[in-house]
Amino acid sequence: MSDKLTKLLEQLGAILEDRLSVAEAVRQHHGEEMTHYDVCLPDAVAFPKNTEEVSKIVKLCHHFEIPVIPFGAGTALEGHFLAVRGGITLDFCQMNHIVSLNAQDMDCTVEAGVTRKQLNHELRDSGLFFAIDPGADATLGGMTATRASGTNAVRYGTMRENVIAVKAVMADGTIITTAARAKKSAAGYDLTRLLVGSEGTLGIITEITVRLYGLPEAMSAAVCPFGSLEGAVDTVVEVIQMGIPIARIELIDELLVDLINGFSGLDYPVEPTLFMEFHGSETAVQEQAEMVEEIAISHGGHGFQWATRSEDRSKLWQARHDGFLSVRAAFPGKDFWVTDVCVPISRLAECIAETRKDIDAANIIAPLVGHVGDGNFHMTIPYDKADPKDVTRIEQINQRLVERAIRMGGTSTGEHGIGLGKKQYMELEHGAALDYMKIIKRALDPNNILNPGKIFDL
Amino acid sequence: MSDKLTKLLEQLGAILEDRLSVAEAVRQHHGEEMTHYDVCLPDAVAFPKNTEEVSKIVKLCHHFEIPVIPFGAGTALEGHFLAVRGGITLDFCQMNHIVSLNAQDMDCTVEAGVTRKQLNHELRDSGLFFAIDPGADATLGGMTATRASGTNAVRYGTMRENVIAVKAVMADGTIITTAARAKKSAAGYDLTRLLVGSEGTLGIITEITVRLYGLPEAMSAAVCPFGSLEGAVDTVVEVIQMGIPIARIELIDELLVDLINGFSGLDYPVEPTLFMEFHGSETAVQEQAEMVEEIAISHGGHGFQWATRSEDRSKLWQARHDGFLSVRAAFPGKDFWVTDVCVPISRLAECIAETRKDIDAANIIAPLVGHVGDGNFHMTIPYDKADPKDVTRIEQINQRLVERAIRMGGTSTGEHGIGLGKKQYMELEHGAALDYMKIIKRALDPNNILNPGKIFDL
Repeated sequence: MSDKLTKLLEQLGAILEDRLSVAEAVRQHHGEEMTHYDVCLPDAVAFPKNTEEVSKIVKLCHHFEIPVIPFGAGTALEGHFLAVRGGITLDFCQMNHIVSLNAQDMDCTVEAGVTRKQLNHELRDSGLFFAIDPGADATLGGMTATRASGTNAVRYGTMRENVIAVKAVMADGTIITTAARAKKSAAGYDLTRLLVGSEGTLGIITEITVRLYGLPEAMSAAVCPFGSLEGAVDTVVEVIQMGIPIARIELIDELLVDLINGFSGLDYPVEPTLFMEFHGSETAVQEQAEMVEEIAISHGGHGFQWATRSEDRSKLWQARHDGFLSVRAAFPGKDFWVTDVCVPISRLAECIAETRKDIDAANIIAPLVGHVGDGNFHMTIPYDKADPKDVTRIEQINQRLVERAIRMGGTSTGEHGIGLGKKQYMELEHGAALDYMKIIKRALDPNNILNPGKIFDL
Repeated sequence: MSDKLTKLLEQLGAILEDRLSVAEAVRQHHGEEMTHYDVCLPDAVAFPKNTEEVSKIVKLCHHFEIPVIPFGAGTALEGHFLAVRGGITLDFCQMNHIVSLNAQDMDCTVEAGVTRKQLNHELRDSGLFFAIDPGADATLGGMTATRASGTNAVRYGTMRENVIAVKAVMADGTIITTAARAKKSAAGYDLTRLLVGSEGTLGIITEITVRLYGLPEAMSAAVCPFGSLEGAVDTVVEVIQMGIPIARIELIDELLVDLINGFSGLDYPVEPTLFMEFHGSETAVQEQAEMVEEIAISHGGHGFQWATRSEDRSKLWQARHDGFLSVRAAFPGKDFWVTDVCVPISRLAECIAETRKDIDAANIIAPLVGHVGDGNFHMTIPYDKADPKDVTRIEQINQRLVERAIRMGGTSTGEHGIGLGKKQYMELEHGAALDYMKIIKRALDPNNILNPGKIFDL
């Protein structure tokens, strides 16, 4: 252990007492992702209680030039919280309070450790809900830092559109608030949006003010199997292009339907399937659903299977969210490579078709699922990371996928973020703009202590 | 004229030939705003034809450390394009082409000099429209740089939500594109949103990719006078809090109604009035309108006067947009102080009431108009800027207005921007966050050539 680290831990211990841990098990819990990344332990884990403590910790890390890494619920998929250069992980589990609810303005401010399910539970009597649903029960801090989205984004946007302001601790320990609660402002640079998606590399987000929505009068969900993947994708494209304000429209390929059936004890037809949800007034929901069903049937959809009762809808979406777990369960002993890309909707069918062809040619198993209304889709690929040939094969599939998406006017990641896994594509995607991201990083974090090694290398 | 400037003009002249002007009349046209700011001429005006030329110009300005100021349609209200330190103004009037229309993805890319009316004219056969309407026929470049919004923002958002990507020339002349056309991305820092609202101080925006919307099946507009300002404001608050997706809801106080009647030859009842518009399917528009009318009547509204035909709607909104001109026309020889603030909707009634009281106590004339669905309102105050007592009085009214808005969780400007006029409130509004804006500015524009003296001083 370096001198600097020893001194830092001493001084942190004086502030945090038993809320600082160097125990192997604790570090292990904070140094291991559920995907294919290698374990990477921090030197210690701190459990701050408030923003002022975070400020003190970061100030010390800045002084000693030791990395500091924010940690939410540990559900990241691209190595975001792995301590690749050691340092102090900040676990926000004790900063899990609702700071204020402004029901009249339909916003609320929460500490970074509040999870999305917790927030919606606490909102249950307000008639309001928080709309972003990435599947995992992530923290709002993590979701903000990674610009998360998920199944509802097609209707309600991503964290980019739903974060009104953040409180953040900057690299030197200064606490800032990025914006007022007003619905709009033209007063200066948009530091809110700069921090959203910065993956902990520009500031440590400690509080987030988010937009809420009124619970729709009516919600209903439907599942529709298709004779072909093309038919399902074409349905999505047409629904979006007609401007139908669908709340969720998710594609699940036949392979994943089969795995979900097995994992969740369901019996959906083993075909490419759309999972959908409609929000609005009773008449609006009915109007939308009828239009979408008509489009679906015209593309070879076999008709809607409805879920209107709340518990049936929950079961449906739980099954959808368990997609990743169902793949894991089906391939015990395997490692899992998770990836996502996003393309303009006009290129979605082509991108999925080419990707499918590539996968078939490589003879690998790669269940495909997507927030296709946004042009965003994912694959979870079981493989053996101890087998260099297998690794190379998957890396090449992933590289071709990313290059294909970028070539089609898309992005290397729609919602998982860059983390460690997509750094190598930043230049291809952003060209000269990448240099300006680095200039900003260097200016805001001169000692490179904030989650170093993520998004890009300096 | 300094040596550096002489040399710069020589080299610019070699590139631009007759598209570089030092003529007094041209400089005058680019150095005078329609509000109360003093005339401030650039040393020369350049008329670039494409991004590469802008890059060459900026590179030279960077080398000679001479300011460079982007100029769109000249409709700014807070001194944004005034050449407070001289330099070269870039007039984008020759960069006014639609670069590409992607109807299937509902987006298009335009050069910075395209105006919003021009864009909607060119979209007329596509079934799509560009939704942001700040009143003036501003350029998309100017609207992006100032994070503009306007009457439609309550439904469609501001430029923050409607800009997908920009092409920009950075301070050293490097050309960057900030994002792909995908609907969402989690790939790195949000340079798009950093440039939106940066008022030409971080980069010169040369192309903008914006979101388009499908033309609604039905549109109808209505005017509703109220017995009191409170009744009108309370109606707005209730409509927003009920989540009714109204497309426009504008408040005009009785003073301004009177002036608009005179200016536009109309005969609206001289009372506080809401101008509204509803977009959607036939049934949705009817449903929304009925709900809103019911709310309005419960707050003392005298019932709706409808405008459903396209030309009647245009006339109605033209009258609304002519608000500023009608004030100018009514007070010949006067100067005009224009200001805007924005507060959370829950504080709007209180903020307007206090402001009204303050104005009445000061015994000044200050017609009030607002995009009240967003909590945003404006005043246009006729005064005499040669009279120091009058100036002080108006400055104090403005200061109290801004402080009131910030105290209520709002912002010093909802949509006009900071420019020169609101710089003094940046610290009150942003606190320590302002330092980080300055750090970013210094890092991205080390010679401080990009529209210097705007938003804040260094």
